[in-house]
Amino acid sequence: MSTRIGILGYGNLGRGTELAVKEAPDMELAAVFTRRDPSTVKILTEGVPVVNTKDIEEWKDKIDVLIICGGSATDLPVMTPKYAEMFNCIDSFDTHARIPEHFANVDAAAKKAEKVAIISCGWDPGMFSLNRVYANAILPDGKDYTFWGKGVSQGHSDAVRRIDGVKNAKQYTIPVESALEAVRNGENPELTVRQKHTRECFVVAEEGADLARIEKEIKEMPNYFDEYDTTVHFISEEEFNKNHQGMAHGGFVFRSGKTGVNKEHNHIIEYSLKLDSNPEFTTNVLVAYARAAFRMYKEGMKGCKTVLDIAPAYLSEKSGEELRAHLL
Amino acid sequence: MSTRIGILGYGNLGRGTELAVKEAPDMELAAVFTRRDPSTVKILTEGVPVVNTKDIEEWKDKIDVLIICGGSATDLPVMTPKYAEMFNCIDSFDTHARIPEHFANVDAAAKKAEKVAIISCGWDPGMFSLNRVYANAILPDGKDYTFWGKGVSQGHSDAVRRIDGVKNAKQYTIPVESALEAVRNGENPELTVRQKHTRECFVVAEEGADLARIEKEIKEMPNYFDEYDTTVHFISEEEFNKNHQGMAHGGFVFRSGKTGVNKEHNHIIEYSLKLDSNPEFTTNVLVAYARAAFRMYKEGMKGCKTVLDIAPAYLSEKSGEELRAHLL
Repeated sequence: MSTRIGILGYGNLGRGTELAVKEAPDMELAAVFTRRDPSTVKILTEGVPVVNTKDIEEWKDKIDVLIICGGSATDLPVMTPKYAEMFNCIDSFDTHARIPEHFANVDAAAKKAEKVAIISCGWDPGMFSLNRVYANAILPDGKDYTFWGKGVSQGHSDAVRRIDGVKNAKQYTIPVESALEAVRNGENPELTVRQKHTRECFVVAEEGADLARIEKEIKEMPNYFDEYDTTVHFISEEEFNKNHQGMAHGGFVFRSGKTGVNKEHNHIIEYSLKLDSNPEFTTNVLVAYARAAFRMYKEGMKGCKTVLDIAPAYLSEKSGEELRAHLL
Repeated sequence: MSTRIGILGYGNLGRGTELAVKEAPDMELAAVFTRRDPSTVKILTEGVPVVNTKDIEEWKDKIDVLIICGGSATDLPVMTPKYAEMFNCIDSFDTHARIPEHFANVDAAAKKAEKVAIISCGWDPGMFSLNRVYANAILPDGKDYTFWGKGVSQGHSDAVRRIDGVKNAKQYTIPVESALEAVRNGENPELTVRQKHTRECFVVAEEGADLARIEKEIKEMPNYFDEYDTTVHFISEEEFNKNHQGMAHGGFVFRSGKTGVNKEHNHIIEYSLKLDSNPEFTTNVLVAYARAAFRMYKEGMKGCKTVLDIAPAYLSEKSGEELRAHLL
């Protein structure tokens, strides 16, 4: 029998999850839940109901795993603990500093309900975290480096849009190529914030706005831009709509470490992602961990887990025998 | 209390394991076992006994995990099932085609003894396998690529040394840069064996040997060289000893996959290793999995496992709380 998936929230992540479930031979989409009027939400999968979130409890026995496609700022801290009391749940909570608190809340709910919940699935946190943990365990004497980009930072784009006179804006985070190369060559550089990433802004200004003032406000904005080398381009709305709607992203995780009697041997572990669609890659991770969650639930496990707690084989629809014969 | 490690075999892997245990704050080396006369084996760690393998059974209660540092051709298929009846065991068995059989033998022994044994720990199989499984689970619609090198292939070097008139030889496997680039650019190329790797041989010939005949025999050798573009360099014994003693290796694992309503988005996952010492990196992996094996044993697990069956957190000496706060 297929694993029955519920999707909560139908924005970019919800749509990506729907596509990922369609690719999974062992899963079926059971329902999409929305806070909007369900009659206004058109989904891709034929014959699957769109249900108002207020009726979700009626689906307790009809869904094996609920994938919660909400935002980390305000949705997930409330939603995941709430729904972990009813369902095995997956989320992509990505506010690193608040993970311990979110973990504790979800863990209490999932343990009470004897369900499995997996939080912070995606690429960072997620695949990047896995690589940090594996690489640290293997090379205890070493240094970690994480670079992000080239890709859009939602938070930085929002910050630029809040400046007076700005109509629209996108901010790209770009890793500094020479820093990447120094790490790759085993130079173990000490890198300041400025030496690791640059920031590039594409801004549509209101007619008659003071461009010099806007550029200065961006470049001097504390926390967001003041520690970086930032380039600002003013462009037309037309160009913005044509060239800056993409959701590509990516990044690099390195560990550079030493072994040997006299630490004479250097080793570089590099993991990198180049993603045409940040949300669709994230949702593919969510769906792989949904598979793991339901298996772990069936084995009697319960409580909150992260990617660090889950054996890789749980993510694959292949059996242990198949994996050992073909992928090990 | 520290985890007490035994090392069986004191060649390159045994010495690397000794260094890796020294780096681990939660482990201590209890004994080194050898088939040689123990008085002829000098180890680095002071105060640790070197014991003849025939007396290993006396150490059953004095060792938590035995790391078996033998060869995959003849040692490990016999040793790991044998010692899994006495100890939690780790090996680096790397003959891909024989893993299912080795797994079955070790599993039977370890289950009988209620011990945990982890086989095929290293980088391929090992870290590369992990990356293949994670990437396949996340991007089900895609293609895998594994490249090895630049590094020495022991099997190919041995094959060249068996040619009449060859005194010594090293064979380097080199990934083809243009093939790497095509994969990295998301071109999803179909690559023949010849298009993925080249082979480079450094040969010391016997005095008066027919160099043209040796070169021809190498390049036409079935299975080993005939499907590759091979370069042969004849060098002096002095140059060989000076420049070809290194044990550097490495490689690349890619998954290139598509998502989207019309499969319009491409994603590239790349994992690469650049290792100054192939054996020392391998032994660092062995020691990380020794930590996992003993934890799993204490939790009551038993039987044979591979890297695919082990949650990443088991490899780290840090607690779940620390990992979630700092590495997730």
